[in-house]
Amino acid sequence: MKKILEGVTVIDFTQAYSGPFCAMQLADFGARVIKIERACVGDQSREWTPFRNDYSGYYASINRNKESLSLNIASEEGQNIVKALVKDADIVLENFKYGTLAKMGLDYEELKKINPGLIFASLSGFGQSGPLKKLAAYDNVVQSMCGIMDITGYPDGDPCRVGPGIGDSFTGLLVCNGILMAYQHKLKTGEGQCLNVAMLDALFGIVENAILEKTVENKDLARLGTRNALFAPYDVFTCTDGLYTVAVTTDSDFAVFCNAIGKPAMAEDARFATNDARLANYDAMMAQLRPWFADKTRAQADEVMTAANVAGGMVQDIPEVMHDEQLIARDMFLEIDDPGIGLHKNMANPVKMSKTPAALKNGSPLLGQDSDHILEELGYSADTIAAYREAHII
Amino acid sequence: MKKILEGVTVIDFTQAYSGPFCAMQLADFGARVIKIERACVGDQSREWTPFRNDYSGYYASINRNKESLSLNIASEEGQNIVKALVKDADIVLENFKYGTLAKMGLDYEELKKINPGLIFASLSGFGQSGPLKKLAAYDNVVQSMCGIMDITGYPDGDPCRVGPGIGDSFTGLLVCNGILMAYQHKLKTGEGQCLNVAMLDALFGIVENAILEKTVENKDLARLGTRNALFAPYDVFTCTDGLYTVAVTTDSDFAVFCNAIGKPAMAEDARFATNDARLANYDAMMAQLRPWFADKTRAQADEVMTAANVAGGMVQDIPEVMHDEQLIARDMFLEIDDPGIGLHKNMANPVKMSKTPAALKNGSPLLGQDSDHILEELGYSADTIAAYREAHII
Repeated sequence: MKKILEGVTVIDFTQAYSGPFCAMQLADFGARVIKIERACVGDQSREWTPFRNDYSGYYASINRNKESLSLNIASEEGQNIVKALVKDADIVLENFKYGTLAKMGLDYEELKKINPGLIFASLSGFGQSGPLKKLAAYDNVVQSMCGIMDITGYPDGDPCRVGPGIGDSFTGLLVCNGILMAYQHKLKTGEGQCLNVAMLDALFGIVENAILEKTVENKDLARLGTRNALFAPYDVFTCTDGLYTVAVTTDSDFAVFCNAIGKPAMAEDARFATNDARLANYDAMMAQLRPWFADKTRAQADEVMTAANVAGGMVQDIPEVMHDEQLIARDMFLEIDDPGIGLHKNMANPVKMSKTPAALKNGSPLLGQDSDHILEELGYSADTIAAYREAHII
Repeated sequence: MKKILEGVTVIDFTQAYSGPFCAMQLADFGARVIKIERACVGDQSREWTPFRNDYSGYYASINRNKESLSLNIASEEGQNIVKALVKDADIVLENFKYGTLAKMGLDYEELKKINPGLIFASLSGFGQSGPLKKLAAYDNVVQSMCGIMDITGYPDGDPCRVGPGIGDSFTGLLVCNGILMAYQHKLKTGEGQCLNVAMLDALFGIVENAILEKTVENKDLARLGTRNALFAPYDVFTCTDGLYTVAVTTDSDFAVFCNAIGKPAMAEDARFATNDARLANYDAMMAQLRPWFADKTRAQADEVMTAANVAGGMVQDIPEVMHDEQLIARDMFLEIDDPGIGLHKNMANPVKMSKTPAALKNGSPLLGQDSDHILEELGYSADTIAAYREAHII
């Protein structure tokens, strides 16, 4: 199988989640990602749980298929190494605080002098412009500011954070999109450019209908727990062994659903016959639907929904997810023999391509494991490399 | 400014959220997206709130910059039109139920005979393989099955749905990534391919550390409300006028934070000096921190955090988000004069590129507004077009 991004070189200064997640998308499809990590310290996620053999599973989960160069980029020697690398690179990726690279003469304005075709991509909490550009942000801060936290949670409870750090993963993917487009432009024209994505912008862009309700109808959409403002029933039901989720989005689907659970009269009832009526009479509708689920297991409910072709699924906890047959069939559990944490299961790349699929080259790198090799490639002598290591330049 | 995807043609069969969101990313950067909508009916999201002038703001929010061709693809004439379009297209995008296009002879196997370089991208709940491939799914179903719902919500409460439909937006972006890579491969080799992304896979891929905690340490991570398993304090605090979010991820940041709120002794206290200790003594820590916020407005808290360079931000509701100065400065509110709902503010594209930026060409199309023009381009006569309209083929 071909690796679509083979021959593409990424100099990756990022750490934590968003940047490494972005770079991993590129590495999964064959790009050479040289991850520059702070000498003797490394990516901050190396300190994040879970641990095995003193290595971080967190780090392992978003850094496969990369090389690690440990480097003190505050030193002149370190800066020279960066410039030598950038000369032949396609992409620089960075998520430093605003202005950090400029202080070291490694910002886009400087680096494009060395390599005019360079693509320079920045990720940060607030982006490279605007009054907050200099401030750091983490996922919970941007989830808060973009409105998503306020519309996640139960109506009678507090706003709630989305469990996973979607501010990071989503921003990482958007940057990846930008990089792929910029690379195409470069292939066509030879021209480089810089691009940036802010976590705040990224999450604001997916607030979905709550923004539109405000701008179009001046309505304030509240948080709705497991419900949805658009459709009913689009919610969870309590079964004997947990929760089961149903999604009915049309009136004809509602009739099918009512038949499946032996309540065909509900679909004829004026209170429930249309989606608008169901939204208006939500509690009455749920009161009639809930008993059917209450004495069944989730598996029993699922069997009926599947047979009737009603969209539904179990609310699974993580141990259950680990045994999900669909995810297994989709090869979403990637076995990796990681140099640090060893053999383990990880989340595979979800983009399934017929001719140029994602591939596993290696697990996440040990800190600086490729430093010697990379410096040799750049023409540094064994003596210089040894001296640099002694001086903690690498 | 150049449009990086100018010259790229997408035949887009998708409806609802994920597919149109994907196609909009391509359209924003200059691709020609011909949206094929069911004749006389249109994309199902045309029926989704909010409405203005009887047009859907939901539809408007994810269909800008596209053309609309209304078409009955169950008719032979409709299928011929599709084939004529595909002949010169680069990309087909579809989110039908599994097998729908095959029944009409419009699946990848057939279409690649017409256009061997075609990129054929499918989005669906469960993907094009595995035991569940034939089932429909919506965002709430995949949020449930992937584990995200179970880890979103408060520890003493029920699992909670993430407010926005992240199963759709995230999957759409992944497909966009896949398309951009496949297009690059096509430019290089002339070769087309098919690709698919499942919503379930997409969301599973961003469950983040909860999966690793299980596979690496066999720990079950519970939902944590506004907290986080990795860092403390990484949570919200109640101010006089709402909630304020703080993210402290290192011990040195904690010392800075404690100084900023006039409690420097806390950073020296063995119970709180390290992140592990703070996680272990969470309630005691929060009990000491909360009073500082309790008598301040969010703006007052924000001023102190900003001055101290501590990552923080207000939990904003949607009306507040609409006036967020950072989002305004980032041009994230796009004014669109939509042919349907008229002038309104929408969410702009968050990928900010220096040489090939996203641009607004037109608002979301009226149903079939481009049918005549597109058929004329294909060589159909005015008489045939009129007859097709009469027969509801277009």
